[in-house]
Amino acid sequence: MLPNLTPDVDLAAELFAGLRAGSADGEGVTREAYGPGERMAHALVRAAADRIGLESSVDVAGNLYMTLPGTDRAAKRIIIGSHLDSVRNGGNYDGAAGVLAGMAAVAGMKRAGFVPGRDVTVMAIRAEEAGAWFPVSYPGSRMALGLMKPDGLAIARQDSGRALADHMREEGFDPDAVARGEHAIGPHNVAAYLELHIEQGPVLDAERIPVGIVTGIPGSRRLRAARVVGETNHSGGTPRKYRRDAAAALAELAYRMDEEWCRLDAMGHVLVCTFCTMATTAEAGFTKIAGEATFQLDVRSVSPHACDMMFEALHRFMDEIAARRGVRFDNGPETGSRASPMDADIRAGLRRAAQALGIPHREMASGGGHDAAAFAEAKIPAGMLFVRNQHGSHNPKEDMRMEDFAAACAVVQRWAAEAAQ
Amino acid sequence: MLPNLTPDVDLAAELFAGLRAGSADGEGVTREAYGPGERMAHALVRAAADRIGLESSVDVAGNLYMTLPGTDRAAKRIIIGSHLDSVRNGGNYDGAAGVLAGMAAVAGMKRAGFVPGRDVTVMAIRAEEAGAWFPVSYPGSRMALGLMKPDGLAIARQDSGRALADHMREEGFDPDAVARGEHAIGPHNVAAYLELHIEQGPVLDAERIPVGIVTGIPGSRRLRAARVVGETNHSGGTPRKYRRDAAAALAELAYRMDEEWCRLDAMGHVLVCTFCTMATTAEAGFTKIAGEATFQLDVRSVSPHACDMMFEALHRFMDEIAARRGVRFDNGPETGSRASPMDADIRAGLRRAAQALGIPHREMASGGGHDAAAFAEAKIPAGMLFVRNQHGSHNPKEDMRMEDFAAACAVVQRWAAEAAQ
Repeated sequence: MLPNLTPDVDLAAELFAGLRAGSADGEGVTREAYGPGERMAHALVRAAADRIGLESSVDVAGNLYMTLPGTDRAAKRIIIGSHLDSVRNGGNYDGAAGVLAGMAAVAGMKRAGFVPGRDVTVMAIRAEEAGAWFPVSYPGSRMALGLMKPDGLAIARQDSGRALADHMREEGFDPDAVARGEHAIGPHNVAAYLELHIEQGPVLDAERIPVGIVTGIPGSRRLRAARVVGETNHSGGTPRKYRRDAAAALAELAYRMDEEWCRLDAMGHVLVCTFCTMATTAEAGFTKIAGEATFQLDVRSVSPHACDMMFEALHRFMDEIAARRGVRFDNGPETGSRASPMDADIRAGLRRAAQALGIPHREMASGGGHDAAAFAEAKIPAGMLFVRNQHGSHNPKEDMRMEDFAAACAVVQRWAAEAAQ
Repeated sequence: MLPNLTPDVDLAAELFAGLRAGSADGEGVTREAYGPGERMAHALVRAAADRIGLESSVDVAGNLYMTLPGTDRAAKRIIIGSHLDSVRNGGNYDGAAGVLAGMAAVAGMKRAGFVPGRDVTVMAIRAEEAGAWFPVSYPGSRMALGLMKPDGLAIARQDSGRALADHMREEGFDPDAVARGEHAIGPHNVAAYLELHIEQGPVLDAERIPVGIVTGIPGSRRLRAARVVGETNHSGGTPRKYRRDAAAALAELAYRMDEEWCRLDAMGHVLVCTFCTMATTAEAGFTKIAGEATFQLDVRSVSPHACDMMFEALHRFMDEIAARRGVRFDNGPETGSRASPMDADIRAGLRRAAQALGIPHREMASGGGHDAAAFAEAKIPAGMLFVRNQHGSHNPKEDMRMEDFAAACAVVQRWAAEAAQ
């Protein structure tokens, strides 16, 4: 039987206020990875951990571990983690909510005198906002897990022009540990990883559900620099059958891909398909038929099969449209990532915890990528819990309600207490 | 019975060579309206008219009339005309072919000692390439016909920034005649107007037919600054039903308009429908759902009903798409022009002439606008004859074959001889 635990949400609220005060940037916040904003956030959270009486340590990448010791110190630990950096002028909750949920959970355990069977560690991960600072995926968690490649350290921060390794050294960390093969955690010493995150889409808010249990982090198949080439002609003087209209060809492709998505959706396949940009090129203009158009395509799904079905359709449509409309598609390099399904036992544990607490919840795929993908890649059972949030993420209007956060913290705490038995 | 006439194609060939030599600009030619290039062209053609023994005069707008006198000088005249200006770095045939066809026709009549029943005038019209120089439609022919509005004279040439009236005065003409209501021609003194022009589209070349008899100059309904507004969102985190995707909405609109065109086309309606530009706006980017997209739409047909059917479909599709996809269409101002059907008697006369000469021909709508539209607006029976041409128009690669031009000149000459009886 689990003891009657409650998370220390007041502590989290206090830390949210401190984080905001220490990183305010206009309406939003800015906590640069391996810069002053992230440094402030780590110092603030570590001070709270010291006050509560957690054991703190920092690894070679600057990741912070704050541990409530368990009865069996040699047993594999439970990690509750997320990141403390933000995008520039972002919101106060993306990332921080996961770290502070961990703090609320273990502070509540400590307050109740609960001693878990194994260590429960809150992990504040470095530099998750790869798109915003260093264009490399999850450098903090990947260094902690021994997944980082040395060439990733050479990647330059876009505004400073200096390498990730330089920024890490400047903050007092040890990027050379990558070459030496040193890393703090792995499947040998971690039993499970749980990450709480605000939902970045509108689903929970629209469906009036406070908590989402994540089924997986989607993989993707992407075209970032694709184009269709036809022939510029007079829009007045060129009848239908003599046209090689790049705009019409792209419109048909985008429409038919959307119809295909609709079809797969109705069959129960969960995916998203987005033509992020579409544009006729500069030579296009009024009274001309467009000779060229560019586009970007982003297909994502937790199921690699769903991504593959969409790309099979894409190539079939392209062939048909090219033949019928006399155009040529030039897709450029295809990029993408593998899907990271979340651990089935963790998902079941989160469902049990939410049910026991009477908290409405649903299962859902993640939209974006998170550090949990790195843990899954390292073969550590990983899970994620989403909290209802308004106005999306990565902007100053992120608007998680504290009652939803409290409900999610209770799920995290109950799951961790059970998992640590 | 008509006498056995042949056009003086050698004269035309010599004038084509002279025009090219006098206005060469890289691979192409440049004959600025009311500028040095057009001035050279008018001087060259007028010198040839003097040599042949035609009567020449110039009107207040600088249009040049070169007349083979008929037996009845008081009868309404026949005009064979076109323009001598070109776009910047255009081809040598667009416009000039129509004037030189008239020269070849009347020179051939003169050579054969043929005296028409009424005057046959070759008219070299000023400044037809409105898009290239002065953004006003047909200023030369409209001044000749008394259709020009005074405010049209104030419109500035795009490169010089000075008004059309100033450029006209600089060339020695009299724009103030517009305010005085003076003009040279009208239904009272012109029986018919015929304009030969290179085909600007690929139809005659593809169908291996040298000559096209124009059914009409299309009217248009146009959106030059339309947009669709949705909502920017994460492409990963936003499921289908929560999207307001401007790119997907525009793709559907363009695709369905294309399908509607296809449907009307199969029913025998002749029109063109072009999304000249389509573009997601600057805030769009990879991993985002586009919140806004802009587009330009150009629908043209000789039949106003066909344009109207397309715009009825447009508004129906927009309403459906807006409701289903949660977007809003903002069409901006609609512009357009009325169609100018070509005169049925002239079309019949051209058919008779081509048949009598054994020259393969077909009827077809014009794609672009031409001075013939101004004559039709002035209630003068107007017709057009297209000549097969390779590589479109308004570019240095215009490539009319002289044998096709000769065939077309023979049709023009025979038609004029019959019409002038």
